[in-house]
Amino acid sequence: MVSFELIILGSSSTLPTSKRFPTAHLLKVDERFFLIDCGEGVQMQLRKFGFNPGRIHHIFVSHLHGDHVYGLFGLLSTMGMMGRKVPLNLYGPSRLKEMMAQHFSFFGSLPFPLDFHSPSSDTSIPIYEDEKVTVTPIPLKHRILTYGYLFREKKKELNVRKDLVENYGIGIADVVRIKQGEDFITSNGSLIPNRRLTLPPYHQRSYAYISDTVFDPDLAGVLKNVDLLFHEATFSNNDKKLAAETMHSTSGQAATLAKMAGIKKLLIGHFSSRYKDHGVLEEEAREVFPYTDGVNDGEIYSVPLERVSTE
Amino acid sequence: MVSFELIILGSSSTLPTSKRFPTAHLLKVDERFFLIDCGEGVQMQLRKFGFNPGRIHHIFVSHLHGDHVYGLFGLLSTMGMMGRKVPLNLYGPSRLKEMMAQHFSFFGSLPFPLDFHSPSSDTSIPIYEDEKVTVTPIPLKHRILTYGYLFREKKKELNVRKDLVENYGIGIADVVRIKQGEDFITSNGSLIPNRRLTLPPYHQRSYAYISDTVFDPDLAGVLKNVDLLFHEATFSNNDKKLAAETMHSTSGQAATLAKMAGIKKLLIGHFSSRYKDHGVLEEEAREVFPYTDGVNDGEIYSVPLERVSTE
Repeated sequence: MVSFELIILGSSSTLPTSKRFPTAHLLKVDERFFLIDCGEGVQMQLRKFGFNPGRIHHIFVSHLHGDHVYGLFGLLSTMGMMGRKVPLNLYGPSRLKEMMAQHFSFFGSLPFPLDFHSPSSDTSIPIYEDEKVTVTPIPLKHRILTYGYLFREKKKELNVRKDLVENYGIGIADVVRIKQGEDFITSNGSLIPNRRLTLPPYHQRSYAYISDTVFDPDLAGVLKNVDLLFHEATFSNNDKKLAAETMHSTSGQAATLAKMAGIKKLLIGHFSSRYKDHGVLEEEAREVFPYTDGVNDGEIYSVPLERVSTE
Repeated sequence: MVSFELIILGSSSTLPTSKRFPTAHLLKVDERFFLIDCGEGVQMQLRKFGFNPGRIHHIFVSHLHGDHVYGLFGLLSTMGMMGRKVPLNLYGPSRLKEMMAQHFSFFGSLPFPLDFHSPSSDTSIPIYEDEKVTVTPIPLKHRILTYGYLFREKKKELNVRKDLVENYGIGIADVVRIKQGEDFITSNGSLIPNRRLTLPPYHQRSYAYISDTVFDPDLAGVLKNVDLLFHEATFSNNDKKLAAETMHSTSGQAATLAKMAGIKKLLIGHFSSRYKDHGVLEEEAREVFPYTDGVNDGEIYSVPLERVSTE
């Protein structure tokens, strides 16, 4: 079974504790590991939760604030020490490349290539694509240039019903066509619709990462029907003014967006350390959108692989 | 009782785990907190072991390798977020200032002053001094410019025996002189030696931090009679050649230096992750110098305040 799992490596905002490290997420799609943001200590968190840093080939950076990137230096250095030779891909604002170049001027270059990728002006174009997944940048509204990312599985090939292949005596070339969605015409000329010949298609699973940003209702479009949405909730509803001033969101705002977009499950995090108990933020969000969890370091959220009826 | 305590915040070398963070030590002398090296995650370790980063005013950096400085960025940022206004003093190689300046050009400046201090060419001159402690840099032999640091208490004022003050009718002015080490002449002209009038003086406690370096027997002089010596022991004796190539030390070499210098207690750390069990390194060192401990994150080593006989 192909997995689609999100691992929370860090869930705090700027003031981490020993239990809540700064922001970092790991998305596992099949055997691909996508690292999203790199808060300080991300390499120790990967170790703690049993993931080999060497298996990461794509790192997505939202913006150049320390609590989202300070773990990048140690992680890349460790990858080099571990003998990495294959390229690592870094996705994020274009200044990321310049920042890393200056960093290496002090700390020495890496023994493997770094390939930088920045979103183009047309942010509907995927920044990453392979045979199974696309990643699309989502421009956010924060104090500096910031991108969220939408990870979505591509449409999977249809599964043809083996019993009918036998019954109708369908040849290999036709099976290939049916997998692509075509109907089948039998030797006596009758048309069998594709829908009858195949199992219901798999749902294309998706995860959207939205941090950091002010409340932006315009995001509801791009987030429509997403399975799993992480949205920052730095502040409580009582601190709405502070959220607006610092260009962050409240838990209620995150939930409002989740509701508008009709997503399946909302995860909130990036909690300010001013709240001793993030349960309050969770409750505020659930009043608006019940399917909300406040995340903790080490938690795993899976999206199951399900067939959807096309009827 | 005035404390002299070393807290191990991180004990690994370049490849940290969730249990062994990169190098960072905290030395507490009375109510002063001296931070020595800043491996990634040092701010989380401070929190974990119950220390408020706001109480640190002096940070000593050995050299500009990532496993000794990557935690500096997050720690300073957090200090700023916590509302720090008072200056922070950074001690280390002169490139540290340039490195931090470039860092701030990307991540914004701090809301408090940073004062940089580099060792002068005459390294016998203390780099830090107050009424109770001096800190002297120790040039080490590593791949880049590196300093160890020797922390030593200053001589304490002598305690005058109250019974004798009364017996001899000693006035306040004379008590002050006796505290400084002078003898006393009674009204009938007889000399009472200072040693009889005072309690035995306190031992001047000391801690030396030696990381990273190749084995350097010339250090025995500056480390003579130190109470507590931390010496890196990246490698086992079996990997002596690798230690020399990378300009690191073996546990046996650390112990040899400890023995030569006649120190009281040796701490070894900065272990390479190639050794699953650092007990082997500890045993190797103890064969040469029995008073050796391999350090772990969170451990505390105290040097007791003791009077020493001058007889």
